[in-house]
Amino acid sequence: MSALLGCWIDGVAGSSVPVDDRGLQYGDGIFETILVRGGKPRFLEAHRARLQRGLVQLGIQFLASDELNAEIARASAMAPPLAILKIIITRGSTQRRGYTPAGFVQARRIVSLWETALETAVAEQGAILRIARLRLPQSSAFPGIKHLNRLENVMAAAEGIGAPAYDSLLLDTGDHLVSGTACNVFVVRSGILLTPPVDRVGVAGVMRGIVLRESTALDIEAREQVLTLDDVARADGMFITNARIGVVQVQRVGEHAFPMNPLATRLAAHIETLDA
Amino acid sequence: MSALLGCWIDGVAGSSVPVDDRGLQYGDGIFETILVRGGKPRFLEAHRARLQRGLVQLGIQFLASDELNAEIARASAMAPPLAILKIIITRGSTQRRGYTPAGFVQARRIVSLWETALETAVAEQGAILRIARLRLPQSSAFPGIKHLNRLENVMAAAEGIGAPAYDSLLLDTGDHLVSGTACNVFVVRSGILLTPPVDRVGVAGVMRGIVLRESTALDIEAREQVLTLDDVARADGMFITNARIGVVQVQRVGEHAFPMNPLATRLAAHIETLDA
Repeated sequence: MSALLGCWIDGVAGSSVPVDDRGLQYGDGIFETILVRGGKPRFLEAHRARLQRGLVQLGIQFLASDELNAEIARASAMAPPLAILKIIITRGSTQRRGYTPAGFVQARRIVSLWETALETAVAEQGAILRIARLRLPQSSAFPGIKHLNRLENVMAAAEGIGAPAYDSLLLDTGDHLVSGTACNVFVVRSGILLTPPVDRVGVAGVMRGIVLRESTALDIEAREQVLTLDDVARADGMFITNARIGVVQVQRVGEHAFPMNPLATRLAAHIETLDA
Repeated sequence: MSALLGCWIDGVAGSSVPVDDRGLQYGDGIFETILVRGGKPRFLEAHRARLQRGLVQLGIQFLASDELNAEIARASAMAPPLAILKIIITRGSTQRRGYTPAGFVQARRIVSLWETALETAVAEQGAILRIARLRLPQSSAFPGIKHLNRLENVMAAAEGIGAPAYDSLLLDTGDHLVSGTACNVFVVRSGILLTPPVDRVGVAGVMRGIVLRESTALDIEAREQVLTLDDVARADGMFITNARIGVVQVQRVGEHAFPMNPLATRLAAHIETLDA
């Protein structure tokens, strides 16, 4: 269902990386997960911009943007009608042991193409979410960027194995809502879209950014706001976002059910039609 | 100076891992860094015990302990007089994309042997430390274990590039001392050894554990205590520990200088003579 269709390491077809790659050794790198639809990578500029922010924040010197762009184009052209393009940039191999990122030659780019499928049932009926027991810290050293240190997401997702849930909601140790393990979250209240800020913890999802941008275009008020589970309980509706699923409404969080929200429906349909 | 001497993936000589390994994709795994001296891995039981705690905490089913032990013995036997054995256990390859650790075949073990050298100058004169600007969270979801999500250590170490410092001290957002980027820390005050607890954040270093154990054997009082930079400023002496360096005294932290501490000298010499 989500098999690997192809992989290129620094532009060369292959599916293995050197063991001294700092992505493996320390999670020293970043990634992007891009939906390719009809051979076209969606919202590519937004993905590129976030990748760039991550590179800057981690001080990874990446000199192969042109090569990467060409590889994205080539992989997209050979993709099935719907696919995922995952891009990982690691700091590369340092030829020495130790945390200090010195003595390295160059960043390594890993472009991989994956099968994916439309999830019609969840799109139509809404997603069921559970609440993770794992808590995120209230502030992380690298908020907003999509780095390779994702053990919290893995273990929160692991909690949900066997549960009838599409994803798990993550709270921080101060009981603030952060996101799902693989999505951002919005609640709708009195016609306003609210989503947690990502300046202390969490990932600034590309689709989250598209929702904030496009809501303006649709004359829907949307803003960042610190949220708790009380806000979830009081919401008129709720939806989750990521690059793969777009905007998907939440059917229920634990025992708390939501009706399908017309604003979210309108927003989801609008974003589906966008070309980039 | 710290070149890779050999590497075995699941027992087979080789130096690359599949790109879908969850260690690379998410930092989904753990590691140990073991000093091999005279062909013998030091404190192997303590390393094994911590590895096991990590596997349990991350729910990684690891069925190849016997194979791993044989590989450790084989690599140690071919090591130069002083070497580092780094063991990584990842959750393996899941053949699918996504955080949820389901559908995987088996954990992957990566055994690598690295050059290392005695650092005589730092052992004799003491280490100079700086204080990292990066702050750790006050609590992490995986305290104590040595997992592969080490971007904080990398970026704090990166801060120190060009500075005349051996390592950087990490504080949490509440101004509590945690550790160095690659070592645990102890202060000596009124003849008592104090080290920060690792039940909320930080790594339970093997050499830290050896120091706590052996101080009892030497009739030196040692205990965990929440510490701040005030405690550092008031200390009679300070030392850092890890599996590679053993016990190394701190010469100064920023502008604050320490005399060589006789208790630490005694402890370091005692631990050097231990066989395991």
